[in-house]
Amino acid sequence: MAVDPRFYPATGPHDLAHLAAVSGARAVGDEARRLRGVAPLGSAGPEDVSFIDNRRWLAALKASQAGAVVVPEALLASVPEGAAALVTAQPHLSFARIAELFHPKPLPKPGIHPTAVVAPDAQIGEGCEIGPYAVIGAGVRLGARCIIGPHAVIGDGCSFGDDCRLFAHSSANFCVAGHRVTLHQGARVGQEGFGFTLTPEGRYHTIPQLGRILLGDEVEVGANACIDRGAMDDTVIGPGTRLDNLVQIGHNVTTGRGCVLVSQVGISGSTTLGDYVTVAGQAGLAGHLKIGSKARIGAQAGVMADVPAGMDVMGSPSMPLRDSLRANSYLRKIGAHGAKPAPVHDGRARPEDTD
Amino acid sequence: MAVDPRFYPATGPHDLAHLAAVSGARAVGDEARRLRGVAPLGSAGPEDVSFIDNRRWLAALKASQAGAVVVPEALLASVPEGAAALVTAQPHLSFARIAELFHPKPLPKPGIHPTAVVAPDAQIGEGCEIGPYAVIGAGVRLGARCIIGPHAVIGDGCSFGDDCRLFAHSSANFCVAGHRVTLHQGARVGQEGFGFTLTPEGRYHTIPQLGRILLGDEVEVGANACIDRGAMDDTVIGPGTRLDNLVQIGHNVTTGRGCVLVSQVGISGSTTLGDYVTVAGQAGLAGHLKIGSKARIGAQAGVMADVPAGMDVMGSPSMPLRDSLRANSYLRKIGAHGAKPAPVHDGRARPEDTD
Amino acid sequence: MAVDPRFYPATGPHDLAHLAAVSGARAVGDEARRLRGVAPLGSAGPEDVSFIDNRRWLAALKASQAGAVVVPEALLASVPEGAAALVTAQPHLSFARIAELFHPKPLPKPGIHPTAVVAPDAQIGEGCEIGPYAVIGAGVRLGARCIIGPHAVIGDGCSFGDDCRLFAHSSANFCVAGHRVTLHQGARVGQEGFGFTLTPEGRYHTIPQLGRILLGDEVEVGANACIDRGAMDDTVIGPGTRLDNLVQIGHNVTTGRGCVLVSQVGISGSTTLGDYVTVAGQAGLAGHLKIGSKARIGAQAGVMADVPAGMDVMGSPSMPLRDSLRANSYLRKIGAHGAKPAPVHDGRARPEDTD
Repeated sequence: MAVDPRFYPATGPHDLAHLAAVSGARAVGDEARRLRGVAPLGSAGPEDVSFIDNRRWLAALKASQAGAVVVPEALLASVPEGAAALVTAQPHLSFARIAELFHPKPLPKPGIHPTAVVAPDAQIGEGCEIGPYAVIGAGVRLGARCIIGPHAVIGDGCSFGDDCRLFAHSSANFCVAGHRVTLHQGARVGQEGFGFTLTPEGRYHTIPQLGRILLGDEVEVGANACIDRGAMDDTVIGPGTRLDNLVQIGHNVTTGRGCVLVSQVGISGSTTLGDYVTVAGQAGLAGHLKIGSKARIGAQAGVMADVPAGMDVMGSPSMPLRDSLRANSYLRKIGAHGAKPAPVHDGRARPEDTD
Repeated sequence: MAVDPRFYPATGPHDLAHLAAVSGARAVGDEARRLRGVAPLGSAGPEDVSFIDNRRWLAALKASQAGAVVVPEALLASVPEGAAALVTAQPHLSFARIAELFHPKPLPKPGIHPTAVVAPDAQIGEGCEIGPYAVIGAGVRLGARCIIGPHAVIGDGCSFGDDCRLFAHSSANFCVAGHRVTLHQGARVGQEGFGFTLTPEGRYHTIPQLGRILLGDEVEVGANACIDRGAMDDTVIGPGTRLDNLVQIGHNVTTGRGCVLVSQVGISGSTTLGDYVTVAGQAGLAGHLKIGSKARIGAQAGVMADVPAGMDVMGSPSMPLRDSLRANSYLRKIGAHGAKPAPVHDGRARPEDTD
Repeated sequence: MAVDPRFYPATGPHDLAHLAAVSGARAVGDEARRLRGVAPLGSAGPEDVSFIDNRRWLAALKASQAGAVVVPEALLASVPEGAAALVTAQPHLSFARIAELFHPKPLPKPGIHPTAVVAPDAQIGEGCEIGPYAVIGAGVRLGARCIIGPHAVIGDGCSFGDDCRLFAHSSANFCVAGHRVTLHQGARVGQEGFGFTLTPEGRYHTIPQLGRILLGDEVEVGANACIDRGAMDDTVIGPGTRLDNLVQIGHNVTTGRGCVLVSQVGISGSTTLGDYVTVAGQAGLAGHLKIGSKARIGAQAGVMADVPAGMDVMGSPSMPLRDSLRANSYLRKIGAHGAKPAPVHDGRARPEDTD
């Protein structure tokens, strides 16, 4: 099924040679062949470009009626007769560039909507698009070509670099952001963290949260995700890190570069992540932990202790991945067949038999 | 305790006969008896209507001072002296209709608030109510009698059928919706999915998300819930499916009819649900799975594999319900009494003793 | 690192005697010593005030260059030479008061923004600040000195006491709130709960939700958190209770005083909490449960049964804490070493060997 032109106007057609050029792929087939859009393997037609980057879709590739397919070298031989190929070491990236050619990301339409409320001393970079009912506070600095969507709110003193996008209903406060930062719809950045103390009278007294939220270049914050500003030091999200929807980041969390936090993950205050840490959906991390670079945390994991660099962990409480698989396998057998907990060797369970 | 008239103006009073007529119940008692509202069994008075649909509330029924009670046939004999009964095979549904009679759902107040920003080519159906600061984009089509709440945003090209309600702060983009669709406060539908690839330079490059979100008739999306549009094909939510608050639906998920996704559930991309699948609170489903019709997934389950139609699963990783109960029972005994993991029959644990 | 003056203008300097007076601490050192702000131990300089309330930061205290440190009596001897001390039984609370002295919470700037939509019969207390694009409905009553942020929506009939704060994009409906109540950005209070019944035709029919949401004095609702109003009786959040971000509260939940619900917690309908219950991050509670006062529910716990007052539980399904630790220890050993599920004493596993 082709991309809906009501939502995604298309450029083109473009010939195979041009697609090869923009995507960094090697064309195999008639370079003058004209293509009109992108589609998945299963629904593509002779004027569509598809891609494959994983053998598990091999059957779909062989059956596809796509006009051209972006493939890794190893799958070139499986491209159907009659289809052109675009051969590349990075099929997904090459395909992304082709999709962007057909359907370029919308450029800002420079201008400030008459309903936007913009403080007199806010500095708006050249070429910014400020949408209806956006509210931009005192002393805010926006770089060039930013797109601020309907109802977005940027609090006093915040600054954003160039080419940032704040989608509808997002809010940023106490925020210093780099270039090409994206807040998706309803994202909340820089609000007050969960810091309070119990008084002798049994009331909770808020601890003033006096830090900021720093967002590195190319950080993306998913829809309705929340990042609290720091208590005194800052909450810091490193360059390229991406948060999916409904993620929660507590005050004074810091991440390195390129971390991936999948939807509904929660990271408690003052935990630090290295670079390229992956945290799968719904996992939770306790506070004041150190998670080393390239660690991978499994879906729904409950991490209560530091995780060394490069380690995979899973489970709640989390364990090294292999241990977790063993423990799950054991429980699955218990579940399937039943058992009674065994006695110890000499027949008596003793209190010291457990940790 | 009666319903607060400041928030819920009431019609009536209504006599028992009328209540029977609108609710499809059989009146037992004085058909001219006048009732003025609804209340729970425990706080109802002689002019209130209550209901019971489960034996576990039998004590409350017997002690109730309600003027009339909606009951199943089996509990008619337990209705207190002096109370009328409305006997029905669907007590909850009959009660709902009575509650709606006393407190009708607000009708749209047709008109477009002067502060709403409505694109010149948007087509607004007859009788729509467009609230303050709503933003309706180019080419949008709204059916008749829709209610668009304060600050709701409908992006370019979206279409909704008749009798839809978009509550305050909700947003819809790249969306095609049927009739009687509801987005609760802060719901986010059609934003960009979590799709990107790692470049050789260690950056993440977004894959253009060129699909749509299709919402069937009577779909409801809870407060602050998020549904991402498709990557190329669409994300599809089948008719009657209801999402509770803070649910997350990844790109290219599809559901059949009448699925129920309780709060904080997360469903990863490309997973498909059949009809009438129930997913209990905080459960998580991995991607690319098939969940058969009428499967029931337990609260906090972690589903990593397909679930056949009609199966109940529980646990993380999930297992068939009965297995999960066995495994939990085992762990509960371990927790209560302690144990050492047992050796195998011949006294030595061997590596191959686990999967 | 000092607090960023762009975001947090400071009062002062203030001398040690004044700090002692506002914080209820005893000054040890030159009472005329001038301090200019607050900072963490690790980055504080000679004009900064820090604090310590836990021995685990002892090394940081000894190495600190702070000009003054708020300490408990037991750590006074560890305060570095050259630093003054402020000795107190509540270091965190005393420090909070000092931080508030340097950086007072913003007072309302009284006035109604020209873009706010305020119903003619709404009663706005003296000194309220109503921000851009706020929408305040018919019959709303706001106490004195409330701050209503950009785009906040207060539905018809709601009432709030004095000194409430509704941050940007929050929404309240069917809500009766006390004094000093806070809704953080995107918080959703009083929307329709998840109540419906299946009709014989296979459709879901909504049960009218005719209750309210009652928020006691000093309740705080986190960013993007959701609290549904009651079905007939009310949803009630007791005084001082705090909800972190992305928490979900189902219809007819009630809590006592001072409960703490950490981020992403979910509490199903009709469950009641006593006073000072703590629910750690991502825990889930089934419906119709009773959780006794001062119970503590662990992170990611899955609570399916009542919890007595003062009990600590953990795990999913949850168990008493000590049992959960035993069970986890057992699984950890299984994970690390492997095992086969043991036979029962006589060598045969029987179906009745499990519950």
